[in-house]
Amino acid sequence: MTAVAQERTRQRLLDEACRLFAMHSFAGTSLQMIADTLGVTKAAIYHHFKTRDEILTAVIQPAIEELRTAIAVAEVQRTPAARADAMLSGMVDLTVKHRALIGMIGMDAGVTSALQSHPDIVELIQRPAELMRLDGTPGAEINATIALAGIATAASSPVLQHHDQAELREHLLAAGRRVLGLRTRRS
Amino acid sequence: MTAVAQERTRQRLLDEACRLFAMHSFAGTSLQMIADTLGVTKAAIYHHFKTRDEILTAVIQPAIEELRTAIAVAEVQRTPAARADAMLSGMVDLTVKHRALIGMIGMDAGVTSALQSHPDIVELIQRPAELMRLDGTPGAEINATIALAGIATAASSPVLQHHDQAELREHLLAAGRRVLGLRTRRS
Repeated sequence: MTAVAQERTRQRLLDEACRLFAMHSFAGTSLQMIADTLGVTKAAIYHHFKTRDEILTAVIQPAIEELRTAIAVAEVQRTPAARADAMLSGMVDLTVKHRALIGMIGMDAGVTSALQSHPDIVELIQRPAELMRLDGTPGAEINATIALAGIATAASSPVLQHHDQAELREHLLAAGRRVLGLRTRRS
Repeated sequence: MTAVAQERTRQRLLDEACRLFAMHSFAGTSLQMIADTLGVTKAAIYHHFKTRDEILTAVIQPAIEELRTAIAVAEVQRTPAARADAMLSGMVDLTVKHRALIGMIGMDAGVTSALQSHPDIVELIQRPAELMRLDGTPGAEINATIALAGIATAASSPVLQHHDQAELREHLLAAGRRVLGLRTRRS
């Protein structure tokens, strides 16, 4: 196989794995099931990934990179409000773009538990809540958690899939700002 | 066994089932596992419940009854804002009180799928989002979804378990009102 064909197979494998994880849960999806759905042998899967954990990590990799960038953008802002607003805006973009992935991850305790063995990812996932706290009060911590949970869950909710991305993005951002107590600004 | 002992066994069974569902997921918990954890035979389980689905329904029954009451209270309010506020307040009480249960249900696609065979429960669960919409605009629908998702996920989040119930309740209610665009009133 050429490098291009290899890459195409790898991407098809990741797309199919993501769909199967969402349907049968991460714990309920075996390498054999992924191979069967793709119509390839388990050896063909092993050529790309040694374990199911490696597949999960590869599935979430693009979103993780965008999260890393969004955090970096937020971190260079000068005030707590500007940091919170930049982080919120980054999270809204990311969750709307990766709706299916967020829905799959958020509904699956097996994914949460598998990610525990990647301390770098765990640390990264905790960072937005820290950046979205306006101060050290309990209220600020609760508000950041509500904003993040509300955005992620609403963006991936089947109920809202009929809204277009731009409309959903705008309302999620406005609602997030109201939860955090941020003034509306140009985004 | 006396009726009291019977009822005590039934409650212990439900508590243990809820704990196992949260740990191994609903799909990953068998009647045999519940029997083993309780140190009883499967026949003793069958005395109380015929299927795992019956256990799930019994586990969520108290929360479902409170939800039914909260919906009834919201429905008799005269204005959309009063209806939304009453429903929000009821949902905050319910989610804070049943944190563990909400966390178990929310993280488990198997529970969502099992509940589909109970149309009355499905209808009941959809009602709060309808009552929390202030009008027929897409924004109102998205806000109601964000408020509900944010409250339920934040209330059951491990991150917020160190806050006491009264503090959590107060902040969830205030944040929910900001998302929905409701004025603060006495609760």
